[in-house]
Amino acid sequence: MGYGEAVDGGPLTRAHAVELDRADPLAGYRERFELGDGDRLYVDGNSLGRLSHDARAALTGIVDEWGARLVTGWHDWVDLAGRTGDALGAAALGAAPGQALACDSTTVNLYKLAGAVLAARDGAVVVPADDFPTDRYVLEGLAAAHGRGLRLLEGDPVAPPGVDAVAAAAEGAALVVLSHVNYRSGARADMAAITAAVHAAGALVLWDLCHSAGAVDLPLDAAGADLAVGCTYKYLNAGPGSPAFLYVAARHQELLRSPIQGWFSQADQFAMGPRYAPVAGIGRFLAGTPPVVGLAAVMAGAEMLAEAGIEAIGRKAAALTTLAVDLHDERLAGLGFSLGTPRDPADRGAHVSLRHPDAWRVCRALIEYANVIPDFRHPDSIRFGLPPLYTRFADVWDAVDRLAGLVEGGVHERMSAEAARVT
Amino acid sequence: MGYGEAVDGGPLTRAHAVELDRADPLAGYRERFELGDGDRLYVDGNSLGRLSHDARAALTGIVDEWGARLVTGWHDWVDLAGRTGDALGAAALGAAPGQALACDSTTVNLYKLAGAVLAARDGAVVVPADDFPTDRYVLEGLAAAHGRGLRLLEGDPVAPPGVDAVAAAAEGAALVVLSHVNYRSGARADMAAITAAVHAAGALVLWDLCHSAGAVDLPLDAAGADLAVGCTYKYLNAGPGSPAFLYVAARHQELLRSPIQGWFSQADQFAMGPRYAPVAGIGRFLAGTPPVVGLAAVMAGAEMLAEAGIEAIGRKAAALTTLAVDLHDERLAGLGFSLGTPRDPADRGAHVSLRHPDAWRVCRALIEYANVIPDFRHPDSIRFGLPPLYTRFADVWDAVDRLAGLVEGGVHERMSAEAARVT
Repeated sequence: MGYGEAVDGGPLTRAHAVELDRADPLAGYRERFELGDGDRLYVDGNSLGRLSHDARAALTGIVDEWGARLVTGWHDWVDLAGRTGDALGAAALGAAPGQALACDSTTVNLYKLAGAVLAARDGAVVVPADDFPTDRYVLEGLAAAHGRGLRLLEGDPVAPPGVDAVAAAAEGAALVVLSHVNYRSGARADMAAITAAVHAAGALVLWDLCHSAGAVDLPLDAAGADLAVGCTYKYLNAGPGSPAFLYVAARHQELLRSPIQGWFSQADQFAMGPRYAPVAGIGRFLAGTPPVVGLAAVMAGAEMLAEAGIEAIGRKAAALTTLAVDLHDERLAGLGFSLGTPRDPADRGAHVSLRHPDAWRVCRALIEYANVIPDFRHPDSIRFGLPPLYTRFADVWDAVDRLAGLVEGGVHERMSAEAARVT
Repeated sequence: MGYGEAVDGGPLTRAHAVELDRADPLAGYRERFELGDGDRLYVDGNSLGRLSHDARAALTGIVDEWGARLVTGWHDWVDLAGRTGDALGAAALGAAPGQALACDSTTVNLYKLAGAVLAARDGAVVVPADDFPTDRYVLEGLAAAHGRGLRLLEGDPVAPPGVDAVAAAAEGAALVVLSHVNYRSGARADMAAITAAVHAAGALVLWDLCHSAGAVDLPLDAAGADLAVGCTYKYLNAGPGSPAFLYVAARHQELLRSPIQGWFSQADQFAMGPRYAPVAGIGRFLAGTPPVVGLAAVMAGAEMLAEAGIEAIGRKAAALTTLAVDLHDERLAGLGFSLGTPRDPADRGAHVSLRHPDAWRVCRALIEYANVIPDFRHPDSIRFGLPPLYTRFADVWDAVDRLAGLVEGGVHERMSAEAARVT
């Protein structure tokens, strides 16, 4: 496919990166996004993905449909959360139909699924101590409400979670929650091995796929996964605050009930009967009225992924991050940087973490003076997210080149430490 | 204002309705919506409001902003839930700033607020037996999870809830949940009197404002309200599945914690610290990433309400529903209909319920053969929703005229009983 050939000695030139772009079978997808400022190097698609022409058309289309059809549009919208979930399942998750929904936020979906498990099973909750905040906070609250222990798993912040350590922590637990790709380091867990080990320990696993859905090939069904949640505003390119998704393996659906007993999860919903009875199947994990407008953009994102093929996307993610790692070694390691991401492509997602003692100011200076948009994660990480559908190899080369030049020139030292920033 | 003058005897002519439109100070707002099929009489804005030009422009604008600013847009979006909540509070809710958020769905917001109350206070939960399903189902689940009683309040389905009956049920309860305007009958509760009575009984009240926000003048602060939730896809015209809102009176905020401990409710959110600590103020009732695209349409809806004035909107709602009630008496009562809505305008919202033994088929026939779009609510209600910003008095006259003609002609008898329909 043109990715990953060794370079015959010598420095990694921009010409080499351009050559990789020429051979890239996904290169044409870049033109399907609104690119704006041609000088800007956007390497923060792992925080918010770009706007595609398809997403814009889908949003315009659903607004047209609202205006023209008004309430009669619900004939087609009423099952949109499930149809979009199925499309995501096929395009990005490795999930057969009837196991995924697009709805609510990642936080609310995590709450619903973890809450359902704690209501059905005894035991503690396990989560890595360095996992994404909302996961830790939601589980802290749920564990307290259910009177359960919360076990915080410590580990090497640059390595994927160890199978043995997770299995040991899972012993006697109800649920293990793990990010498939760590938000800071980009380290990717071995989903199949960990799932099997947690099952052997008697617990279930809930995977947070925020940093892997649409970035790498996901094998939920094949890995025997139990539950998952994730967002669609990163590698699914569905827009700021777009609806999230959830996955519940078919074998668990009848045994679990969402703690949020909303009317969209009710059997025979429009009979509006006196008592709650959850519908059979994945629909029982819905809550309120689905976010129809937002779902249209999620569907557009899933369709583009399906067209490109998640295997090809995963291969390009490996090649892009390999180039970033090689350039780190060549250009950045001598400037006080260290690599915060595993070196084996199979152990990472589509972003790399570049650690530096002055990362906050370096990150600010990249934005202010170099027209490179990465993001910062406490305490010392600059993340370069490299979404395969619109990131060129030359972009990776240019971003590292600007970063190296900026630090060599001490430009970041002009930045004050206080300037506020959010992502 | 030209509303509500008595007609000097004789039948209610279409000319009278046209005269009311001529004198209507809000008449110009109709042109600010996309009207589509000019023959269609849309009287289901109480289910899904029309698309305004402003909402379309706001949605296009936020998509442009996403495409151009990418992640840097979060600088302005990060507090959008609060800013939109404040705008709703001022325009529609009678709430001072810092007490409302636009976020999640009504169901999830109800869960968060009712769950917060049950975690903080002892006692049962009270809800009318005929209240909207999602309210009853969510509370049934929360009451069970907290080991509390669920008291179902019975009452006259056409009358507002009685103050004494609510107060009696509230004795020793933690929380009373009531719809301000009943989804089926349109009956409007006396918010101030009931709030005072429930407080005297030692409980808090949570108002479901789905059928009143944007339809009638709401006095949350003045009524001493504790908590409220509601949707924005009806009288706020923010689109199918648009973000909902919540309100927590300032005096309660520090005492309550959302059961869903998401990262957007965390103090010093981007420090991503190890333990959850809710931020001070209304922000602690956020959960996950706010639905930025959808919020833009909610803001547009709030701004149009603010411009028109909620008092003027409430006056027109009273006049429109008065015309519908008068036309019911004149044209429909002799055809097997009865009025399912209180006769005093102060006791109702902006929709009327027309009850008929064959309501399901009549409703179907209105859509199929008369180009009138109302909706049906089990078991026998046809709802005519009359959103003041775009409903003309002549529309009310025409809709009742077509309805009367259809039933007189027995057209509904052509419909089969099974045809599926959702709203």
